[in-house]
Amino acid sequence: MAETKYFEKEITLSPQSEPAGSTFPAKLAYWTFGSPSNPAILLPTCYGGTLGSTFPFLYNGPNAPLPPSRFFIIVVGLLSGSESSSPSNTPAPHSGPNFPYMTYEDNIHLQRALCTHLKIVNERLFAYIGFSMGAQQAYHMSVLYPDFVENAICIAGSARTSWHNWSFLEGPRHALVMSADYLNGYYAEPPVMGLTAFFRTYSTWALSQGWFREKCWEQLGFGSLRGYLEAWWTPQRGGRVGSDANDLLWLLGTWQKGDVTLYNERDGTTGEVGDLGAALGKLKARVLVMPSRTDLYFPPEDSEIEVGLLPKGEFSCIETIWGHMAGGGSGSAEDKEFIVKEVKRFLGV
Amino acid sequence: MAETKYFEKEITLSPQSEPAGSTFPAKLAYWTFGSPSNPAILLPTCYGGTLGSTFPFLYNGPNAPLPPSRFFIIVVGLLSGSESSSPSNTPAPHSGPNFPYMTYEDNIHLQRALCTHLKIVNERLFAYIGFSMGAQQAYHMSVLYPDFVENAICIAGSARTSWHNWSFLEGPRHALVMSADYLNGYYAEPPVMGLTAFFRTYSTWALSQGWFREKCWEQLGFGSLRGYLEAWWTPQRGGRVGSDANDLLWLLGTWQKGDVTLYNERDGTTGEVGDLGAALGKLKARVLVMPSRTDLYFPPEDSEIEVGLLPKGEFSCIETIWGHMAGGGSGSAEDKEFIVKEVKRFLGV
Repeated sequence: MAETKYFEKEITLSPQSEPAGSTFPAKLAYWTFGSPSNPAILLPTCYGGTLGSTFPFLYNGPNAPLPPSRFFIIVVGLLSGSESSSPSNTPAPHSGPNFPYMTYEDNIHLQRALCTHLKIVNERLFAYIGFSMGAQQAYHMSVLYPDFVENAICIAGSARTSWHNWSFLEGPRHALVMSADYLNGYYAEPPVMGLTAFFRTYSTWALSQGWFREKCWEQLGFGSLRGYLEAWWTPQRGGRVGSDANDLLWLLGTWQKGDVTLYNERDGTTGEVGDLGAALGKLKARVLVMPSRTDLYFPPEDSEIEVGLLPKGEFSCIETIWGHMAGGGSGSAEDKEFIVKEVKRFLGV
Repeated sequence: MAETKYFEKEITLSPQSEPAGSTFPAKLAYWTFGSPSNPAILLPTCYGGTLGSTFPFLYNGPNAPLPPSRFFIIVVGLLSGSESSSPSNTPAPHSGPNFPYMTYEDNIHLQRALCTHLKIVNERLFAYIGFSMGAQQAYHMSVLYPDFVENAICIAGSARTSWHNWSFLEGPRHALVMSADYLNGYYAEPPVMGLTAFFRTYSTWALSQGWFREKCWEQLGFGSLRGYLEAWWTPQRGGRVGSDANDLLWLLGTWQKGDVTLYNERDGTTGEVGDLGAALGKLKARVLVMPSRTDLYFPPEDSEIEVGLLPKGEFSCIETIWGHMAGGGSGSAEDKEFIVKEVKRFLGV
């Protein structure tokens, strides 16, 4: 484990945040490995992810493709992700349900400032690699700072949260908000009923029909599906960070509002809100778009549409039945090997 | 609208029911059209369905393929489906959350007795046609009474509820049970928060990613996805029957336990519990298996496996982006036309 550092900056909340235009004393939790004189690679967290769970196999261990001996690795936690500023760790008056809804834009500007603070070489990222909400951040960084990202790898994510994805998220959101112990966010103890409903409405989306057909919980050491669900998709899961109910809801808000076209009308170039071609057309980064074949909420069909709008996009699908989970390295051993192989090939390392 | 009749019979609850072996004074709600001297066709309700919503386009109207002038149409409501015996309409001591969990077997034996009562011609059904839970009933009737069903049409359903399907249903179930106003089923007013969470965790599963991508809510006359969800997937939906919270939960229990292999060890023939080939091998009916290409919880892959185990099975897929909804005739006009065309072809009418 690395030492967690915090980058502190008073930020002005973006127009999509609530309350937009306010200032907020933000803290960004991050790890670094290696020397800033080496090419910089930024790895952002995903939904439910932590600094420690974010692609350790890419930079840690003897076969890691991006060793800190050759690269400057920066792992950054999402706002509302429980390590960076979040409902659960922010003092009054912004504590709990009074925390502002953060956007990808809020995150991206902070990450950009962190990179300046860290004096990364050439003042640009050699690579930005993200899974799920991390992939959405990769798109947002590449749109908001086109000259700042040389290579982006977007795994099981999208540049704009699809209507289907938004609608799926409405399920867990309602399950938690309507629960007996959420209490409008003013709970004194963890709302176990609400969190249980939240995780059970989420879990089936994270995998695929084929995963269940093949009883893949057995590969994880569980004798029954019920045993797997009760161990993994539960608020009591041992050592889980990110299970604070307000954190989960606020971060879900960031996800639901994810849309790179929101900036089209503000950056003085081209396009209107909703014009995905105009937004993605601004990218200067090479982009590897890597969905999972069986992802139910970031389906490969959406990725194919987006890659077609990228000036330098490449499509490479993880052929797996591990659904969305495969993209973060939580799929089969073959899935993880495929990700490593593709990262090496695409970055030429 | 037809006159709703009730078939009353004291039943002994099946081994999978709770409490199994008890007797229960069951009422089966049904409609009939036409003369019992004509070939009989049974149409069972689906989840959230009513007698009135069950395939009216198959028997009603000038172009209906199964007119009551030529067939004896029997529409039957599921136990726990709000029209037949259900938590919401049963007096104490079986009212509300004290209603027993019913199984497909309980339903099927009652339906079989109803057909005897109705004196259907040749003492067998010319056809049993079901959608979703209705398709599951078609399989169960054909397994439990192999000589009783000449033709079965199973639309967007399965002979055994898959692990994926079971897991998806755990979402809405938890959302309702954990809600602030469900009160363990002893609510005095409809639990609007719980029902809202229930419908929002269910809705996205009923359609497909492509349906959202193409903004198909516009074809239903809605200007926004939010507007569609708030109008259709809500406890306040005008005129909806089947929105009683306990009814929804109890019927969901029937669905989750659906499995034609449960009877393998009891009927003195072949096979063990779990042996799908042995169970489906008993069928004498011709079976048309008609999934929707984009059904997220009864995916066509599962249907293909099941049709491969049927002695006289035929596979015909509805090519649509309307997901599960397409199978009940709530998809596009083309989907409904396809169902009508296939019913006519398969039954030779």
